[in-house]
Amino acid sequence: MKKIAVLTSGGDAPGMNAAIRAVVRGAISYKLQVMGVFRGYQGLIDDDLHDMTSKSVSNIIHQGGTILKTARCKEFPTKEGRKKAFYNLRKHDIDGLVVIGGNGTFTGAKLLGEEFNFPVIGIPGTIDNDLYGTDFTIGFDTALNTVVDAVDKIRDTATAHNRLFFVEVMGRHAGFLALHSAIASGSEAVFTPEVDGDMERLYDFLRNKFKKAKSSSIVIVAEGTKEGNAITISQKVTEDFPEYDTRVSILGHIQRGGSPSPFDRVLASELGVAAVRALIAGKKAVMMGLESNKLVEVPFDDAIFKKKDLDPRMVGLVGVLSI
Amino acid sequence: MKKIAVLTSGGDAPGMNAAIRAVVRGAISYKLQVMGVFRGYQGLIDDDLHDMTSKSVSNIIHQGGTILKTARCKEFPTKEGRKKAFYNLRKHDIDGLVVIGGNGTFTGAKLLGEEFNFPVIGIPGTIDNDLYGTDFTIGFDTALNTVVDAVDKIRDTATAHNRLFFVEVMGRHAGFLALHSAIASGSEAVFTPEVDGDMERLYDFLRNKFKKAKSSSIVIVAEGTKEGNAITISQKVTEDFPEYDTRVSILGHIQRGGSPSPFDRVLASELGVAAVRALIAGKKAVMMGLESNKLVEVPFDDAIFKKKDLDPRMVGLVGVLSI
Amino acid sequence: MKKIAVLTSGGDAPGMNAAIRAVVRGAISYKLQVMGVFRGYQGLIDDDLHDMTSKSVSNIIHQGGTILKTARCKEFPTKEGRKKAFYNLRKHDIDGLVVIGGNGTFTGAKLLGEEFNFPVIGIPGTIDNDLYGTDFTIGFDTALNTVVDAVDKIRDTATAHNRLFFVEVMGRHAGFLALHSAIASGSEAVFTPEVDGDMERLYDFLRNKFKKAKSSSIVIVAEGTKEGNAITISQKVTEDFPEYDTRVSILGHIQRGGSPSPFDRVLASELGVAAVRALIAGKKAVMMGLESNKLVEVPFDDAIFKKKDLDPRMVGLVGVLSI
Amino acid sequence: MKKIAVLTSGGDAPGMNAAIRAVVRGAISYKLQVMGVFRGYQGLIDDDLHDMTSKSVSNIIHQGGTILKTARCKEFPTKEGRKKAFYNLRKHDIDGLVVIGGNGTFTGAKLLGEEFNFPVIGIPGTIDNDLYGTDFTIGFDTALNTVVDAVDKIRDTATAHNRLFFVEVMGRHAGFLALHSAIASGSEAVFTPEVDGDMERLYDFLRNKFKKAKSSSIVIVAEGTKEGNAITISQKVTEDFPEYDTRVSILGHIQRGGSPSPFDRVLASELGVAAVRALIAGKKAVMMGLESNKLVEVPFDDAIFKKKDLDPRMVGLVGVLSI
Repeated sequence: MKKIAVLTSGGDAPGMNAAIRAVVRGAISYKLQVMGVFRGYQGLIDDDLHDMTSKSVSNIIHQGGTILKTARCKEFPTKEGRKKAFYNLRKHDIDGLVVIGGNGTFTGAKLLGEEFNFPVIGIPGTIDNDLYGTDFTIGFDTALNTVVDAVDKIRDTATAHNRLFFVEVMGRHAGFLALHSAIASGSEAVFTPEVDGDMERLYDFLRNKFKKAKSSSIVIVAEGTKEGNAITISQKVTEDFPEYDTRVSILGHIQRGGSPSPFDRVLASELGVAAVRALIAGKKAVMMGLESNKLVEVPFDDAIFKKKDLDPRMVGLVGVLSI
Repeated sequence: MKKIAVLTSGGDAPGMNAAIRAVVRGAISYKLQVMGVFRGYQGLIDDDLHDMTSKSVSNIIHQGGTILKTARCKEFPTKEGRKKAFYNLRKHDIDGLVVIGGNGTFTGAKLLGEEFNFPVIGIPGTIDNDLYGTDFTIGFDTALNTVVDAVDKIRDTATAHNRLFFVEVMGRHAGFLALHSAIASGSEAVFTPEVDGDMERLYDFLRNKFKKAKSSSIVIVAEGTKEGNAITISQKVTEDFPEYDTRVSILGHIQRGGSPSPFDRVLASELGVAAVRALIAGKKAVMMGLESNKLVEVPFDDAIFKKKDLDPRMVGLVGVLSI
Repeated sequence: MKKIAVLTSGGDAPGMNAAIRAVVRGAISYKLQVMGVFRGYQGLIDDDLHDMTSKSVSNIIHQGGTILKTARCKEFPTKEGRKKAFYNLRKHDIDGLVVIGGNGTFTGAKLLGEEFNFPVIGIPGTIDNDLYGTDFTIGFDTALNTVVDAVDKIRDTATAHNRLFFVEVMGRHAGFLALHSAIASGSEAVFTPEVDGDMERLYDFLRNKFKKAKSSSIVIVAEGTKEGNAITISQKVTEDFPEYDTRVSILGHIQRGGSPSPFDRVLASELGVAAVRALIAGKKAVMMGLESNKLVEVPFDDAIFKKKDLDPRMVGLVGVLSI
Repeated sequence: MKKIAVLTSGGDAPGMNAAIRAVVRGAISYKLQVMGVFRGYQGLIDDDLHDMTSKSVSNIIHQGGTILKTARCKEFPTKEGRKKAFYNLRKHDIDGLVVIGGNGTFTGAKLLGEEFNFPVIGIPGTIDNDLYGTDFTIGFDTALNTVVDAVDKIRDTATAHNRLFFVEVMGRHAGFLALHSAIASGSEAVFTPEVDGDMERLYDFLRNKFKKAKSSSIVIVAEGTKEGNAITISQKVTEDFPEYDTRVSILGHIQRGGSPSPFDRVLASELGVAAVRALIAGKKAVMMGLESNKLVEVPFDDAIFKKKDLDPRMVGLVGVLSI
């Protein structure tokens, strides 16, 4: 192993820059050369590769977004596209690749690795925290901070009676962000894609607990819940409980940005250096993860196809704590 | 003047607590007694008044919301209601009243003062900054911080091409928050209730400037703009410019909360003490304001009925700076 | 088990309120009565106990400090003092106690439990993260955020050449906060109480790496390092390397305050409910911890007397990433 | 006027980037060419000038520091140095210069302008807010936010009795930052370079008011106060009042960094565009300022030599509000 490359792909996640920095400086500290691929797999196909030095990643650890940018790529899912990508990797004498992203990123990485027997290591970078095999993905903690900071502000204003706030957060298929932000913000109810009966629990809360003590309540809604989005759920509640005054906030892409939290930066630093070590050790087709506070290598097949469940301990906490 | 009372009314604004604290401690330092009225005019009618000491307002300067709470009151707009309120003021030997809020708050204050020849002083507390006679209202700067912080995060993620973010901010009748946040966040366009032609300017931007340099653009939309809200505007743009990928964030009540900014705290501290001084000096039916960096007394009639316009200097800046 | 009590003791840590809330609401959800002890062990001796309801802990999850306050107590370390404390616990028919704090707190709890065969459960609340048996203590993540936020700001200003910033952080006996903040902020060197040779490594850095690429550098110093504090270290460096312009920041008690991070709130919520469950299950003399992402019960003897070491994986990262 | 240049000089202030952006885009919108000078006057002497486009200043409005960097320059105070600078300005056909900085920056600008009859416009960029003729300097509001955020955190921890926190803030010759942060943070006392009797007032507070109501108190100390710095003042207090437990925080360069506040960004945007307009209008040797909410042109001689005083209204507020 003499030369490696690194790219980011898929949706932005805060901490991607910290991971790029760790891969680049980790590589340099192990005497490897390292190139950065711009615009993800599209850049690999277009030969948008550039030499990276220690200085290239100076002063980026705290920046949101990704200096390597990401882009959608229609060509990479085709064998023809991956062939071009491999050709460019070879052209630059690159022996190994680190990809930072989520499920789709690893699917592409798996195919490239298998077809050309090329070592690719993945680093989990997504605010959804929905990758099997790692307790945390890079960006989740920062997105959680952003959501909870927003909900804290809403709570300040919650001095009026009978007011019900719905806050829609990201999560098309995964409710980690919704669930953890509900616990951390002391919200009264939560809707996630994974759990059934969220509407019933909310109605039960409104009928029984709400009037007793609370001046106002907050409900977190993952965008991908079966019951609809924050607007449709709030409309239904307004019909059934006309005595409540409902308000909606939709956070949107705010959740993908912001300076990464220290937690995400440390995680990204660890995983970035570990990915370089894994390449040197001859590993391939694995995602680096942190499980039970230990660095682990998760086969792409597991990371991609296995389902990571919400922790039932956490699911139960929302009800206990909104008593 | 031996004893005064203070209340907050209308929508929450960050800094109301700092103003309450300044009124209470200002009163004490001038050897006055002071009572706090809970839940605004409703509390005045319900005799929900309580003695305030220096300690009552300890450690609240940095808190969002209002410790005195606010509430809607259907009775106060009636003469009967105001009579009850006046009765309670007299009952507690209160010689003067300070009300913290916006337009509706001052309208009630004006009537109470006129009907019972009772001295009432207003303090402008609203995130909308739409009160005539003062350059700034308490809460505006904090709300501006909240909006701009959100837009900064969106910009982090704006590495993809042809993406257009719409961010809806508060402002049913006033565009100060939208306009100032557009300038401060470096947004490419803004929709306000006051200015015509916002849609044309956006289309002009999309047709001419957008493609040149920008990887993505942000548009701030005040909720009360004539062209619709952020969702309807984004839908119209998607129809007319299908090549753009549009996303919407609706900030909602987040903008009313949060720890007040130092600017708002200093403003609230100044105005709170000045309101006490005004009562002692025998003033009535005026709002304390800060104009051209000087403390001023604005007759309620001006504060309520005159229209504060957007500064044309500011309106022009958005176009100049998004070149 | 019908009635329990909860107290906070020792130095403040952000998230203590979230833990109190979880104990109170956890107890209520298991049909237990619960009292709050004000001012730690001193309040136990002075009979400063008060009934807690769900509403007593409403709207505190996001607040720094502790609503139960803490205090130094000279009497509790004496058997006589603990006797009074036990007497008050019995007087109120309390069957179990939850104490939130650090090493000193648990030492007191252990003695009380042993002498009177009284069940006490500990919850780790300290920014130092220095308790054996738990991967994280409540408050550590928030303090880390505070330190890293400060260092990020210093880095903004680091455009001048040959400037060396020393930032002193808390940690008399433990370097977790210093080490993790050095990694997360991309600092160039770190001084901890645990590791030898920090001065040599700094000098090596200054002699060899500094001049190459960096315009300025940041050094994190734990207050309890053997080499002195930030001021004395910076003075020594100034003597030996007069070409550097050195600056010192001492963060102090800022690190103990602030709204707790979502991470700390979730941790506190989990541990608080778990502590109640442990009491119900008949446990005693254990600290609840989170190890390898699992809830664990750590005997007080281990939590108090065993030494938690810095992770060598982390210690190595600082050097690798400042290359 | 066909081509202008812009530079930043002196200590960093948040918002300098927003001002650079406004000068560059303002120039472009008026059909002028514009160059950026790196490293202040040193870069002018070294011919470190570069063409700036709209894109050069894209995505910098929210960044701390200055993309043009600053540097000390020993040569520019000499006539020989300024001759080289002027030579380079002419070489690039530059007709006017905008300098962003403080007192020292304008002193250099004044000399350059007078000696070579060259139009130079100043923009006030310093966290000290100590420039005569403008109500606010760029960076002051952000630094104030940073200080107050720190003090808020300290107050969280102030549950123990008899504790006295000293927080040292920047300000060698000016107490604006100390005074405004004392008001905004609700601090109990303040030391500034301008006002006499600060020690007496503190002692009076400690003797009379402190014990009544307060559990702990905070004192803000400007670094340039006559009574010493935070450490020496705290030591003196400890000697005279051994019953108090004193703690010191020294914020240091944290105050110069951070993302500029919206207030500072709007101010910088206004002044940047105004500076371009002033050059076009044939103005020279003036600093653009904002006084009484109006754009004003302040002769360099006034900005440099006249003393801006603390507002007595503000000085009085600290005592009134810590009652």
